[in-house]
Amino acid sequence: MNVLITGGGGFLGQRLARRLLEIGSLADRDGRPRSIQRLTLVDVAPPPLIADPRVDILAGDIADPALIDRALGAGVDAIFHLAAVVSGMAEAEFETGMRVNLDATRALLDAARASGRSPRVVFTSSVAVYGGTLPATVLDSTAVRPQTSYGAQKAIGELLVNDYSRRGFVDGRALRLPTVSVRPGKPNAAASSFASGIIREPLNGQDAVCPVDPSTRLLLISPRTVTDCLVHGHEVPAGDLGGSRTINLPGLSITVREMADSLARVGGRQAADRIRWTPEPRIERMVATWPGAWDNSRAIALGFPADTNFDAVVRQYVEEAGLRLN
Amino acid sequence: MNVLITGGGGFLGQRLARRLLEIGSLADRDGRPRSIQRLTLVDVAPPPLIADPRVDILAGDIADPALIDRALGAGVDAIFHLAAVVSGMAEAEFETGMRVNLDATRALLDAARASGRSPRVVFTSSVAVYGGTLPATVLDSTAVRPQTSYGAQKAIGELLVNDYSRRGFVDGRALRLPTVSVRPGKPNAAASSFASGIIREPLNGQDAVCPVDPSTRLLLISPRTVTDCLVHGHEVPAGDLGGSRTINLPGLSITVREMADSLARVGGRQAADRIRWTPEPRIERMVATWPGAWDNSRAIALGFPADTNFDAVVRQYVEEAGLRLN
Repeated sequence: MNVLITGGGGFLGQRLARRLLEIGSLADRDGRPRSIQRLTLVDVAPPPLIADPRVDILAGDIADPALIDRALGAGVDAIFHLAAVVSGMAEAEFETGMRVNLDATRALLDAARASGRSPRVVFTSSVAVYGGTLPATVLDSTAVRPQTSYGAQKAIGELLVNDYSRRGFVDGRALRLPTVSVRPGKPNAAASSFASGIIREPLNGQDAVCPVDPSTRLLLISPRTVTDCLVHGHEVPAGDLGGSRTINLPGLSITVREMADSLARVGGRQAADRIRWTPEPRIERMVATWPGAWDNSRAIALGFPADTNFDAVVRQYVEEAGLRLN
Repeated sequence: MNVLITGGGGFLGQRLARRLLEIGSLADRDGRPRSIQRLTLVDVAPPPLIADPRVDILAGDIADPALIDRALGAGVDAIFHLAAVVSGMAEAEFETGMRVNLDATRALLDAARASGRSPRVVFTSSVAVYGGTLPATVLDSTAVRPQTSYGAQKAIGELLVNDYSRRGFVDGRALRLPTVSVRPGKPNAAASSFASGIIREPLNGQDAVCPVDPSTRLLLISPRTVTDCLVHGHEVPAGDLGGSRTINLPGLSITVREMADSLARVGGRQAADRIRWTPEPRIERMVATWPGAWDNSRAIALGFPADTNFDAVVRQYVEEAGLRLN
């Protein structure tokens, strides 16, 4: 089993790589577990070396056809396509977003098709495909109406994954990710960056700005759960997916105020007091267009794992970051 | 006012061209009527000459950037983008469909953006964006789930038109067309070709094959109404469109049996008897995924014209074709 992860140097790509190496196998087209012989990580900056003989590293522009050719050269059975330009950057740099989020996705699907192996392709989409006036709980049957270029590019990627799968070119799965929280490390250019920052920074003794109103409802997924969902997204038999390859992953629906309450319970009142509530209209506008809740039932029925409470998610971060709380 | 029609040699393109020349003006960006100085018709085969000094003819491949440059060279204020590969052909020739239905649409939007004039762009989409399990009446809020490559390519075009409009690159309007009936002329490679053929051929004394069950419900629009809808789609003020540039045009919801009944009333029983009911699973599968009814209310509220009964639509064909019925 040869596996490719684009965006393999990123936070999710690295977690996924380690998880796959730990599991050691993935389902082949007949659903039988096959051991992973090779795991290729592609990213624009060279992905950190993982000391494992199965791991190959490939650095370059994912929108470059030559790189895609090299990445698929040996014949790939499973592709996790995580490489993307985040929402804030795709909004600021339109061409970059189109090239990475749209052109590279299509080029990758075309290369997968050309390989003649109809590989499984797990494509990460996003809550950001939704927008405009939404029902309190978004359903699988709710129309997407992206209000950002990032959301539009992801929605287009979903359509491509579905059509390429319907035609048998690939066996694709487009997973709509809730906002991942708590991400470790530094803030990034995603409009949703604060959804990790307001937990992470206070737990590390730093102030954090929350640019949206405390009543704002977010749909979250923890790093551990999203990683397991990516793996499961590969493993689900195609026959279970019916007419749609697009799946809203299980999300935890929670207000920002409730997040701060979890932070206070797990990290203490002084941690929660480090959140500075400073509205930023640019961010608020983008976040307001995303669903605060959606119907998880299809994903649950398909066997995807789910987070059940945010206190546990905060503790997951504390544990993984090796923090000692007073 | 410089106007461009892609697919200008086609049935709709020709009708639209004549209608625009007749009206003589279109709204500028401030909503004021401006006379049409030039009307450029682009098509892969040279469009039939319309004897009018305002008309320019340009033949070539709409997916060729050089042709698009020439078409927009003089500075264009309004673009009607009708050029497309039909459903049956996009299914049979995947690359052709992607190139014409997707790449050309994007190239045209990019050229419109590069012009710096933020022209109005009327893009024709289709019922074929819908599919899978649908409510009896499709709503504006119903998710698209195309079951053909044509439908997927049109759905992607809609997303591009919306995002390019949101960013101010163009002032776009994506009109979802019901199946146009009764088209004159010959059958084409569209899966919906029979929806005209079963009326047209019998009225011309020929047998016609109906490849779907009489109980199949279709969503139809007449040639005259769809032409007026294209013009109106340009004229609607951007401010009326709210958060979505995609509009389900008013459709007449009718079963194929009711169509045959209209044919019998207008053209006589012997005309209706010329329909041969011969199911073709390939066609039935495609047609079954399209909505048989959708909510017309937004289009009506926006002032789009609508057909009200199919007998009148059959008479429209008889009249325009200059037929004399016994």
